[in-house]
Amino acid sequence: MPTNSDCIFCKIVAGELPARIVREDERTIAFMDIAPATYGHTLVIPRSHSRDLLEIEQADLQAVAHAGQLVAQRAKERLGADGVNLINSCGAAAWQTVFHFHLHVIPRYSDDPLRLPWVPAQGDPDEIATAAAQLIG
Amino acid sequence: MPTNSDCIFCKIVAGELPARIVREDERTIAFMDIAPATYGHTLVIPRSHSRDLLEIEQADLQAVAHAGQLVAQRAKERLGADGVNLINSCGAAAWQTVFHFHLHVIPRYSDDPLRLPWVPAQGDPDEIATAAAQLIG
Ligand SMILES: [Zn+2]
Ligand SMILES: [Zn+2]
Repeated sequence: MPTNSDCIFCKIVAGELPARIVREDERTIAFMDIAPATYGHTLVIPRSHSRDLLEIEQADLQAVAHAGQLVAQRAKERLGADGVNLINSCGAAAWQTVFHFHLHVIPRYSDDPLRLPWVPAQGDPDEIATAAAQLIG
Repeated sequence: MPTNSDCIFCKIVAGELPARIVREDERTIAFMDIAPATYGHTLVIPRSHSRDLLEIEQADLQAVAHAGQLVAQRAKERLGADGVNLINSCGAAAWQTVFHFHLHVIPRYSDDPLRLPWVPAQGDPDEIATAAAQLIG
């Protein structure tokens, strides 16, 4: 499986960096964004390293899309989200900052103030832990 | 195939409303957004009607993801885009306005002024036609 020793998401896949993982399968993991745009903001990534949408292989893209759909369902059912945005950023010009393909699953709440790009700021760890507990398993 | 007689995207699939279609396959069509957020903004939809991410069936989601990737590639190669955002909006709270599943493929250009949500405004028809000609086939 392709990995990149400089990639923080590869390190999360390898268990070398901590993350609040809420779902995993053979090809993907989903974990909490540490600078959430909204309550419950989750990232879905392929275990295998690929830089972006132009590089990711079909089977990984399809597995990520499926996992994103399942996390979105949980966000609606368990977090009380009123909607969900799925967002992929391909390239720095599109706001990509970590160059391991990832799909943002952003739960939305009626009248939440979200505008994009959001200004990433360290989230409240307790709040992230609470959302993770609701989304897991 | 599920269709919804009140749905403008179903009408585009059926050929009852005009659209600048740039790509199609058995399950999906891709056509120009008439109120583009950036040059080359395209929508990918399943031919079969489903309301949103929570309703779309697996095979359609995977076909849309694949088509989105291919359109993104063309945007980079043919439009000179520096990046691409893929965005799905599920629910009014997430900025969904047409309730037939669609994936936005938004070409990005270094230092373009895009902020989300963008304020939809009728695009320049000539510019949209030019982008369509570059993206087709
Ligand atoms: Zn990686
Ligand atoms: Zn429809």
